[in-house]
Amino acid sequence: METLSENACFGGVQGVYRHASSTCQCDMTFGLFLPAEAKDGPVPILWYLSGLTCTHENAMTKAGAQTWAAEQGIAVVFPDTSPRGEGVADHADYDLGQGAGFYVNATQDPWAPHFQMWDYVAEELPALLAENFAIDSDRQAITGHSMGGHGALTLAMNLPGRFRSVSAFAPISNPTGADWGRKQLSAYLGEDEAAWAKHDASLMMKETGFDGPILIDTGADDQFIDLLRPEALAQAIAERRQQAIYRLQPGYDHSYFFVSTFMEDHVTFHAEALYGD
Amino acid sequence: METLSENACFGGVQGVYRHASSTCQCDMTFGLFLPAEAKDGPVPILWYLSGLTCTHENAMTKAGAQTWAAEQGIAVVFPDTSPRGEGVADHADYDLGQGAGFYVNATQDPWAPHFQMWDYVAEELPALLAENFAIDSDRQAITGHSMGGHGALTLAMNLPGRFRSVSAFAPISNPTGADWGRKQLSAYLGEDEAAWAKHDASLMMKETGFDGPILIDTGADDQFIDLLRPEALAQAIAERRQQAIYRLQPGYDHSYFFVSTFMEDHVTFHAEALYGD
Repeated sequence: METLSENACFGGVQGVYRHASSTCQCDMTFGLFLPAEAKDGPVPILWYLSGLTCTHENAMTKAGAQTWAAEQGIAVVFPDTSPRGEGVADHADYDLGQGAGFYVNATQDPWAPHFQMWDYVAEELPALLAENFAIDSDRQAITGHSMGGHGALTLAMNLPGRFRSVSAFAPISNPTGADWGRKQLSAYLGEDEAAWAKHDASLMMKETGFDGPILIDTGADDQFIDLLRPEALAQAIAERRQQAIYRLQPGYDHSYFFVSTFMEDHVTFHAEALYGD
Repeated sequence: METLSENACFGGVQGVYRHASSTCQCDMTFGLFLPAEAKDGPVPILWYLSGLTCTHENAMTKAGAQTWAAEQGIAVVFPDTSPRGEGVADHADYDLGQGAGFYVNATQDPWAPHFQMWDYVAEELPALLAENFAIDSDRQAITGHSMGGHGALTLAMNLPGRFRSVSAFAPISNPTGADWGRKQLSAYLGEDEAAWAKHDASLMMKETGFDGPILIDTGADDQFIDLLRPEALAQAIAERRQQAIYRLQPGYDHSYFFVSTFMEDHVTFHAEALYGD
């Protein structure tokens, strides 16, 4: 693992690291904020999964998460959104290929060899973090924005016991029923929709739900709201009687100005779950 | 004036606007955050002047100022750092020409026609804001980072009564004595150093000081600290017995991670001055 940069930040350190990923078969870069408390021992960690077109860097510089993570003594990891590099397949569209891994393990050509983002985020990167940093793997929470909100919700529901809490900003909520989803799931997983179900937060909510608290914010004026389909997830949450706070925020759109506005609420929400018990 | 974007942000609006500048003789773009309180009437305003290579956008997306400005009910304006466009002179170096206006009125060719950033920030943009937005021009404060800290300090000291408070993050503090300064001042203002003095915060501090509180933060591990010359300004402040808080922050560098870490302190500092009396 190589240190690309480390900057003092809110009393802790904002680092950027690169490593050779055996899962994605390419170099992968991630950001990690460690609060001051990490000098004294392992700290809880919040995963932040980013949206389409993003790298590890966007949320790290624009979402304002460190402000509140430092206040709560929580680490935040910012993984990249896909494998990258010259030997990695790509597509001319912004929403397929590099920058658009969709947090699945691709089974279809040309994506299968590198696009294994599910395993990367669920297995390889957690192990790397536990080995190299003062992270308490028993206290993890997860959030994300847009495609990353989709990733956060589906990982949390598919890995019971892993995350104490899950939240999302404007998540892609029903990808099997929208163009942000059908296009990518068919490309990465093939046409058999049975393989898609675990990657649809609304279907997973109907099927299994989440054993912990959920917080979801979506801008009522989100310019992509028809692709997000928040109504499908809201209905599924209500049908299941899932512990959840589901908010539509008037006037807000899909931007990082929206994300940063509600970041304090999300980090505080996760801190309550991470420090409870 | 043209609206390029408006995003809901911390209960207010983060806008980006473009206008034909008579001062710079080109189109100029700026960001303006208006807190929710601006819907009910004029609000105080904090000027944020950015550093070398920045546009209006960098601090607007990375400095975290809106978080605290919203809490205090203060507007924040993010001007660009220079004139721009095809007809505007430029230089291959990052620290001269476009993106490096240095907050002076150039008198030398090829810069003179467009590089009038002092008048733009001191005269044209304030008038435009007062005419178009709910801004209380009697309650203004100013801050900035690096070259923008230089701009904030020199504008505040040269325009007595204009700003109630001034702060700076890692300001270029003694440009007549460092390569970040001598190069630009000679290019824009010519070789007669008498014309440079009003653009040197340390010289201005010796000459006139500031009738109000000052807050300055510089990272003790700033990678450009030899170019900033904080010692010159610290000495001048102490000699004058100027009301000031001058802090060296251990471990911090020149990045926006440094700026955002101390942004709450700076906005709170300005709020006290803006809401006092």
